[in-house]
Amino acid sequence: MPIFLPQCQECDTCKNPNENVCQKFIPPPEAIGLLTDGTTRMSCKGKSLHHFLGCSTFSEYAVVDESQVVKVDKTAPLDKISILSCGVSTGYGGPFKVAKVVPGSVCAVFGLGTVGLGAVMGCRNQGAKIIFGIDINNEKKEIAKTFGVTEFINPKDYQKPIHEILIEKTNGGCDFTFECVGNIGLLESALYAVKPGGGHSVLIGVPPQGKKASFDPYPLLYGRNWSGCCYGGFKPKDDVPGLVEDYMKKRIMLDEFITTTLPIEEVNKSFDLMIQGKVTKTVMYYNEGFKV
Amino acid sequence: MPIFLPQCQECDTCKNPNENVCQKFIPPPEAIGLLTDGTTRMSCKGKSLHHFLGCSTFSEYAVVDESQVVKVDKTAPLDKISILSCGVSTGYGGPFKVAKVVPGSVCAVFGLGTVGLGAVMGCRNQGAKIIFGIDINNEKKEIAKTFGVTEFINPKDYQKPIHEILIEKTNGGCDFTFECVGNIGLLESALYAVKPGGGHSVLIGVPPQGKKASFDPYPLLYGRNWSGCCYGGFKPKDDVPGLVEDYMKKRIMLDEFITTTLPIEEVNKSFDLMIQGKVTKTVMYYNEGFKV
Repeated sequence: MPIFLPQCQECDTCKNPNENVCQKFIPPPEAIGLLTDGTTRMSCKGKSLHHFLGCSTFSEYAVVDESQVVKVDKTAPLDKISILSCGVSTGYGGPFKVAKVVPGSVCAVFGLGTVGLGAVMGCRNQGAKIIFGIDINNEKKEIAKTFGVTEFINPKDYQKPIHEILIEKTNGGCDFTFECVGNIGLLESALYAVKPGGGHSVLIGVPPQGKKASFDPYPLLYGRNWSGCCYGGFKPKDDVPGLVEDYMKKRIMLDEFITTTLPIEEVNKSFDLMIQGKVTKTVMYYNEGFKV
Repeated sequence: MPIFLPQCQECDTCKNPNENVCQKFIPPPEAIGLLTDGTTRMSCKGKSLHHFLGCSTFSEYAVVDESQVVKVDKTAPLDKISILSCGVSTGYGGPFKVAKVVPGSVCAVFGLGTVGLGAVMGCRNQGAKIIFGIDINNEKKEIAKTFGVTEFINPKDYQKPIHEILIEKTNGGCDFTFECVGNIGLLESALYAVKPGGGHSVLIGVPPQGKKASFDPYPLLYGRNWSGCCYGGFKPKDDVPGLVEDYMKKRIMLDEFITTTLPIEEVNKSFDLMIQGKVTKTVMYYNEGFKV
């Protein structure tokens, strides 16, 4: 499986068991869109094309750096497990690997796409007692419950900011919150929504580049914790084979994340569906001929 | 000893061993400056006076809520251990109680007043290998070394922001940073100065109220951790007697924090000294008649 996050196994980060953001992943600005050796291996009508996150798998063949390929169980269905390459793992790792949610916890997940639903699944697998699922699309409500959401909240149904609603509903704040949208204004709400003295908010969603977030530092000062994670804190080569095994042994769900399956020729249709709010989870592209 | 942070021993926070910000500490805005029962017990020429943080100990007698008084070893010298009531404990608890600095760590402490020097002492006691001490007052340099700073940095000696200097000196970032100034612009530098994938920055300094801090969320997303703590994460009644014992058994320093001792009548002189940069640590007020 190709994965956007490298694990070169040589840098200081890769050698540290507690870290996962391989130093090959943060290239200098002039190397963005190139492979880790600084080249591009794709062209169209004589012009070089950039690679998307080092993988660019919307094609029949792809050259991918060995640090970005993971060997997994041959018998696992690639058309299902491929969503472990990004969305599901990114969400699932937040509560499972990073926050280490404890049984009986009160959690809230902001945004219920594949990343958010992965986080919901992580909260449930960790034994959370209450899982608030927050989304402005009411079509997520029933789907979210199948993943473990115990109460769905549409912020549009309220006049107050979402953190105030959560603080009221929990009589002081959640134990854990997971921001799975990457909305620059929502980051602070996810922080305020955890309780002082021990509450933990994890940023999982990818915010727009070049924008600063702002927040009142007092909630942080009163003993809250704020973390972020890339790819759910997982090291691709070390952890993904185990996630595939978890799927094969039915410890995690994957099939349920797939809303629609389309042939690769209709890849652009999925963007239309997404904009129309009809893709409630993930579109799987059917691309039988793909070879790394 | 009177302490600004209550421990009522009845609220959910007090009952949780991992939390210390007693719910009596965050009063509604209309109760700021009053005792926890909503009254003020001080007056001057017939007018009510507000209490400072529930203690107001610059007086011969004081009424203090029982949740804010701690019983300590009778033989301990009050004119030394009283600085455990705020500054030293607040700083010391950051690396000791909140971040739990591990032996061999690379740490940086921003601001070397009593709070910052307390944090330096905490880093050293936890076995940190390198402790950067950062302050714009060069007079702190030698004092800081006696507490454990291994390299003093005056940001005014550089053109770059302090986090860039620290990232260069550490080849990627510190393991832990402690913001002990409460400077709204410095918070983000303290976050950026820790390494991605596991670095931990702790806000200890008290920022000005009503101001928002801003930051680039990408460093957080790449696996950094951000926490804050009030009173170093200590529970007053549970933890302060142990800190007093640590002092009596010479496991922590206190005498070394005291720059000057003044009689209470000269309390205002200390502000002059502070503004002149002549108080490099703490001024101890000599107030023999104080009774709770």
